[in-house]
Amino acid sequence: MKLSARNVFPGKVVAVNRGQTTAHVKIEVAPGLVITSSITVEAVDDLGLKVGDTATAIIKASEVIVGK
Amino acid sequence: MKLSARNVFPGKVVAVNRGQTTAHVKIEVAPGLVITSSITVEAVDDLGLKVGDTATAIIKASEVIVGK
Amino acid sequence: MKLSARNVFPGKVVAVNRGQTTAHVKIEVAPGLVITSSITVEAVDDLGLKVGDTATAIIKASEVIVGK
Amino acid sequence: MKLSARNVFPGKVVAVNRGQTTAHVKIEVAPGLVITSSITVEAVDDLGLKVGDTATAIIKASEVIVGK
Amino acid sequence: MKLSARNVFPGKVVAVNRGQTTAHVKIEVAPGLVITSSITVEAVDDLGLKVGDTATAIIKASEVIVGK
Amino acid sequence: MKLSARNVFPGKVVAVNRGQTTAHVKIEVAPGLVITSSITVEAVDDLGLKVGDTATAIIKASEVIVGK
Repeated sequence: MKLSARNVFPGKVVAVNRGQTTAHVKIEVAPGLVITSSITVEAVDDLGLKVGDTATAIIKASEVIVGK
Repeated sequence: MKLSARNVFPGKVVAVNRGQTTAHVKIEVAPGLVITSSITVEAVDDLGLKVGDTATAIIKASEVIVGK
Repeated sequence: MKLSARNVFPGKVVAVNRGQTTAHVKIEVAPGLVITSSITVEAVDDLGLKVGDTATAIIKASEVIVGK
Repeated sequence: MKLSARNVFPGKVVAVNRGQTTAHVKIEVAPGLVITSSITVEAVDDLGLKVGDTATAIIKASEVIVGK
Repeated sequence: MKLSARNVFPGKVVAVNRGQTTAHVKIEVAPGLVITSSITVEAVDDLGLKVGDTATAIIKASEVIVGK
Repeated sequence: MKLSARNVFPGKVVAVNRGQTTAHVKIEVAPGLVITSSITVEAVDDLGLKVGDTATAIIKASEVIVGK
């Protein structure tokens, strides 16, 4: 499946931090460039996400703020 | 000002595409890794964004979907 | 690819309305239940989206407001 | 009050899962079509949300990704 | 209808700027405090939004970034 | 750094409520007008956010729903 989201970056999971309902997952998409994602714990279990996994960070263009 | 957003990536503007009210800005944050942002034309003018500028892509962790 | 997004609804494209940079795409995911999406025109072209296509509406749980 | 959000789907609450600060609420908006929402625990208490309630899932068009 | 969104601010519409598919609406919610919203032109027409109207800005807590 | 986000409101932190991974921060940006933000606990620690701090609420225009 191809996505309309303009930002689709494959990488490697470097951290999974579980809370009660929300988890934080960190994906390294380029050397030293780590994207942090906040997703449901349900999703972490559903995808079986763990450190070392190949995973993709997906971000809709409308969610990106620009600073200058 | 420091931001709560977990994803703050400095880079270089490689494209600015203006519509009537919405513009798309592309920022290269690592070699070959380009983040696309959809912002208001008003913001493009306000920041004076143009190709070649140093700029930063800012993304809240809660906006990042993970795929596996 | 499996997604962390909790809401992944397959359906049929019933409308594509293109603006200069932003397009609106409507997907019927159940009889009479139409989801409206606002995406980049670039994405519409990239996916070749047109009326009648099978397509999927994807929504992160953190983007859903509840009313009562 | 009428909302600008293009996606306003009434349904029935089928699950409420409370964490420390964030809760997940599931609303069935069509037979078998369940929308998952991640909201604050404060909001769950404020609305008195519980299984069996009539409730509405509200989603802005700019938050919907399209897959094909 | 009561909303789970933690930020619901009534005010007065001070500007409506229409593009082809996206419009920007500005609502003054306190003296000198103007909230800018980017919504579909379809929504502007649907709500009949015009300068001088009483309207409400609604923002989910998960969409607010904090700077310090 | 100047931001593309159209809504940048300075104020004072009036509450910080920490969960396991997600925290809620309330910022008063005008007399009686309090904006609630849901951010990562990591960000709260990173910014050293506490009641009484001067802080800024930042909201992208595309995240604001209008009601009428």
